Amino acid sequence: MNNLSNQVAFIKEIDKLKYIQRKTRLFNSDRHENDAEHSWHLAMMTIVLAEHSNKPVDVLKVLKMVLIHDIVEIDAGDTFIYDTSKSHTNTEEEFLAAQRIFGLLPAEQGQEFIAIWSEFEEGLTEEAKFARSMDRFEPLLQNTSNDGGTWKEYNVGYQQVYDKKIAIKDGSEQIWKYAEDLIDESVEKGILKK
Amino acid sequence: MNNLSNQVAFIKEIDKLKYIQRKTRLFNSDRHENDAEHSWHLAMMTIVLAEHSNKPVDVLKVLKMVLIHDIVEIDAGDTFIYDTSKSHTNTEEEFLAAQRIFGLLPAEQGQEFIAIWSEFEEGLTEEAKFARSMDRFEPLLQNTSNDGGTWKEYNVGYQQVYDKKIAIKDGSEQIWKYAEDLIDESVEKGILKK
Ligand SMILES: [Ca+2]
Repeated sequence: MNNLSNQVAFIKEIDKLKYIQRKTRLFNSDRHENDAEHSWHLAMMTIVLAEHSNKPVDVLKVLKMVLIHDIVEIDAGDTFIYDTSKSHTNTEEEFLAAQRIFGLLPAEQGQEFIAIWSEFEEGLTEEAKFARSMDRFEPLLQNTSNDGGTWKEYNVGYQQVYDKKIAIKDGSEQIWKYAEDLIDESVEKGILKK
Repeated sequence: MNNLSNQVAFIKEIDKLKYIQRKTRLFNSDRHENDAEHSWHLAMMTIVLAEHSNKPVDVLKVLKMVLIHDIVEIDAGDTFIYDTSKSHTNTEEEFLAAQRIFGLLPAEQGQEFIAIWSEFEEGLTEEAKFARSMDRFEPLLQNTSNDGGTWKEYNVGYQQVYDKKIAIKDGSEQIWKYAEDLIDESVEKGILKK
């Protein structure tokens, strides 16, 4: 029963993810997406698209990764991917957040969650590569549906987009092919500057 | 590549789940929860609480269930659990919604999703029982955090709450024990009428 009390404390705490607003907006919309919605969408994309992974992946592990990957932002806030003033790798702030929030769980389970989150951040395993490709693919779909979205809003050009999105290729060559076409079309349509 | 186009059409369509508002509100909050946030939260609860299931469950399948269980509400809308004027079992409207929305996927995958959704709705397998217990447990936690929440708002009493929540027991005796204590405490605190 003590396990359960700690787990409920964690379940309540992570409700705060619903208030963390991302820069990107919902499809064909002005409304910003929050991190809980984003995490749900990545989980759905994982189930739907797992067949396109370069290598066979443990889908359950990928799901755990995408479901928890942004929880540290409850303390550390959302980092905009094109913000060059901030590092996007494992900051001290995010590490402390992971310790505090996953630390609410029973010890062994908390350690498991920190390990999964670290694996995602490091991006070295097949599961992490595929999870990260989902995280890059969703905002690409959103921006193309929103007439350029954050690319226009923050004056982000073709090369910057290409350099960030090519990580999709590490998870799935097939999805990358699709993504690359979308990027090229966006240039043709004039919603992304080259 | 054709598979991928159909899958992306589905991924875009389900963005609409973020606009389906539930009656319940976020923890300690006036803000209503939407179905995408709710689905993410149930997925997190599943990962965290699976060890308390009465019988061992295929966690990946439970996750698929909770992630997709409300997608039909994009067409059919949210049904309030204490609304006695509407049936809560598999309505014709929900069935048509499942056909349309999961029908956007490649045929075989669409059939798989409809089967998982039906299994959840029928509630007969261990996976469905555990998934459904998560779906009942989350709003109980929310209402107790919100001074009675929808119980007060819609004048719902102890017996109605008890009769709906006891389904938690089919998924987890342990979580039900915790839930029953919460319900009793709510009566003592005066936030639930007996
Ligand atoms: Ca992020």
